[in-house]
Amino acid sequence: MSNVYEESLKLHEQNKGKIEIRSKVSVTNQHELSLAYSPGVAEPCRAIHKNKEEIYRYTSKGNLIAVVTDGSAVLGLGNIGPEAALPVMEGKSILMKQFGNVDCFPLCLNTQNTEEIIQTCKLIAPGIGGILLEDISAPRCVTIERKLKESLDIPVFHDDQHGTAIVTIAALLNSCRLTGKKVEDLVVVVSGAGAAGSSIIRMLHDLNVKDIIALNSKGIIHESKIDMYNDLTKELLTITNKSGKQGGIAEAMVGADVFVGVSLAGLVTKDMVKTMNKDPFLFPMANPIPEIMPEDAKEAGAYIIGTGRSDYPNQVNNVLAFPGLFRGALDCRATKINEEMKFAASQAIASLIENKDLRTDYIIPSPFDDRVASAVCKAVVQCAKDTNVARIK
Amino acid sequence: MSNVYEESLKLHEQNKGKIEIRSKVSVTNQHELSLAYSPGVAEPCRAIHKNKEEIYRYTSKGNLIAVVTDGSAVLGLGNIGPEAALPVMEGKSILMKQFGNVDCFPLCLNTQNTEEIIQTCKLIAPGIGGILLEDISAPRCVTIERKLKESLDIPVFHDDQHGTAIVTIAALLNSCRLTGKKVEDLVVVVSGAGAAGSSIIRMLHDLNVKDIIALNSKGIIHESKIDMYNDLTKELLTITNKSGKQGGIAEAMVGADVFVGVSLAGLVTKDMVKTMNKDPFLFPMANPIPEIMPEDAKEAGAYIIGTGRSDYPNQVNNVLAFPGLFRGALDCRATKINEEMKFAASQAIASLIENKDLRTDYIIPSPFDDRVASAVCKAVVQCAKDTNVARIK
Repeated sequence: MSNVYEESLKLHEQNKGKIEIRSKVSVTNQHELSLAYSPGVAEPCRAIHKNKEEIYRYTSKGNLIAVVTDGSAVLGLGNIGPEAALPVMEGKSILMKQFGNVDCFPLCLNTQNTEEIIQTCKLIAPGIGGILLEDISAPRCVTIERKLKESLDIPVFHDDQHGTAIVTIAALLNSCRLTGKKVEDLVVVVSGAGAAGSSIIRMLHDLNVKDIIALNSKGIIHESKIDMYNDLTKELLTITNKSGKQGGIAEAMVGADVFVGVSLAGLVTKDMVKTMNKDPFLFPMANPIPEIMPEDAKEAGAYIIGTGRSDYPNQVNNVLAFPGLFRGALDCRATKINEEMKFAASQAIASLIENKDLRTDYIIPSPFDDRVASAVCKAVVQCAKDTNVARIK
Repeated sequence: MSNVYEESLKLHEQNKGKIEIRSKVSVTNQHELSLAYSPGVAEPCRAIHKNKEEIYRYTSKGNLIAVVTDGSAVLGLGNIGPEAALPVMEGKSILMKQFGNVDCFPLCLNTQNTEEIIQTCKLIAPGIGGILLEDISAPRCVTIERKLKESLDIPVFHDDQHGTAIVTIAALLNSCRLTGKKVEDLVVVVSGAGAAGSSIIRMLHDLNVKDIIALNSKGIIHESKIDMYNDLTKELLTITNKSGKQGGIAEAMVGADVFVGVSLAGLVTKDMVKTMNKDPFLFPMANPIPEIMPEDAKEAGAYIIGTGRSDYPNQVNNVLAFPGLFRGALDCRATKINEEMKFAASQAIASLIENKDLRTDYIIPSPFDDRVASAVCKAVVQCAKDTNVARIK
């Protein structure tokens, strides 16, 4: 692992970061200058002034988004601030371009005040086609995204919440397809009820999963602890734990069909896996060290295992979701990314693996499967049209 | 002229705007992904978290600026709003890249509230190396720039104020060199006391120009009208009109050596020029139609004429200033762009024309003279070091 860190440091230093802004038009002589800039540029300005929608015709807005962070929850590094978050934002930007052909610039904000973040995003909206929120800590990230979705007419999407959730659901759909189990019959344990966990839980709920046992740092989310919960956790209380379980991770795992971990390295033991129902699915996605190592999970009886790591099969990598999702949202000029579009993305990712190819170690396509982004894009566009959020019909 | 507008519209539509974001590193396989993004990217994040200055080493910040507008004073089009301003901002962005190799993304703000603009610029500062303010109306633009210069440690520069001023001063310096006149002996009329006019007036004052007669829409700026003036105009009152002139443009021109116009098409007549001192310099820069057409000015006795137009000699084009200025400020990591650096830019632009080449129709180099940006950059870096605002020694 140390090598990848040293090599990464060298790569970042040699290139002085990862992004640059390029011109799409030539300005090497007086005539070209007069078209791209003064006096010619006055004409597209006038056209947009007359009809705001023309901004999509004459500017980069339709393909340009901002990735916005406050640096409060960066990777597994925590609250390292906006400056130290920039390498991740630039990384997101180049993945957007590479996989979705979306132009994306980073904004690292010098505030962790929820209202200031919301206000800044609102103020920068006129010139951009969408906002990717990134590495903002829970529960503020949920509030920020919701309020922005209410007030802006461009897509706003917090990847840490929904990116992982979309790919996790894709993995679960294919696990069911392979084994013949039905999603709605499953008891699912979700360890971690922050950004990713809460979005996974809501998607599972919308899929009519039989019972969801959610855990945060204080154990199973249960009414008896309601006084300790923030609004986000209180919301989860209403859609989880139908069986009224109490206790910690050990108690949660008994009789479960699926484990989803977005929490802590090494939280789950082999003994716990042995208390689950037969042939369980385990998605321990803590990074870089999962809640249980795949070898151990297998030994203890896990049937399908997916992690966040690229050196094991079934990597739950949100790069499978966000580039195609934004590509689609921009292509149909969606006013938002709604729940239906997120499910459409999950299904598109899952569907790329045909029945004959589906195996326990191949339930999720590779990030470098070049069919992914276009399949997600296509499904998202169709869904946006079906749910009336597309401005291009 | 109508052709350039139609052609420009087509250019903008065909390319869907003018800018794109590109990756400087390759992410086409798992190994490259692990370096540019997770898990490798954690290492530059950690390095910056330990020492914020390392952001210049491992990210794009050192070469990345934002061009920020509220759309309140766009070209000659006026207050057309942030959406309609975007084509101009993208234009600025590609000129920054073409002439200064500076990466520049546009931010069009959905507010014309001075404090909100200031606050937004402060909040986005951590990830960028500088801010180019653009097309913000006076006197707010002056307040915004001053407050940001006080509170940020990255260069902030309002091009409409200082870009035109720097190049106008370069033109004046070379006019004096050609004719043997001394700047400090000149009486200069400046018509227009907004963004560009006020900056020109301040630069002339710092050059010890004998007398500056400034005009706004209410005529010559004079103590008798102080109740009608905003703070910016009141400031100008203290450094202009030593001779106590009153009246309008006709009264101002009598006995003047230089006319600088950043005001209205056709304001100046031949008769007015005839009342000026012998062999006057005229810089009627209203766009697209100057205060007096060069042919008329010449007939009336003007010795040197410069305009904002590319189809006449001596184009006062701020693209001569801002790309090299920002290139230099970023190269030496200047904490601000001070008055001295602006003069250094003027002198560098003027100095590019050797004595033997200097002519009445060649006092300003062409925007496509590829020596300009590097000469400006070099002068600005030296000046930043001399005035102790450079963080790289």
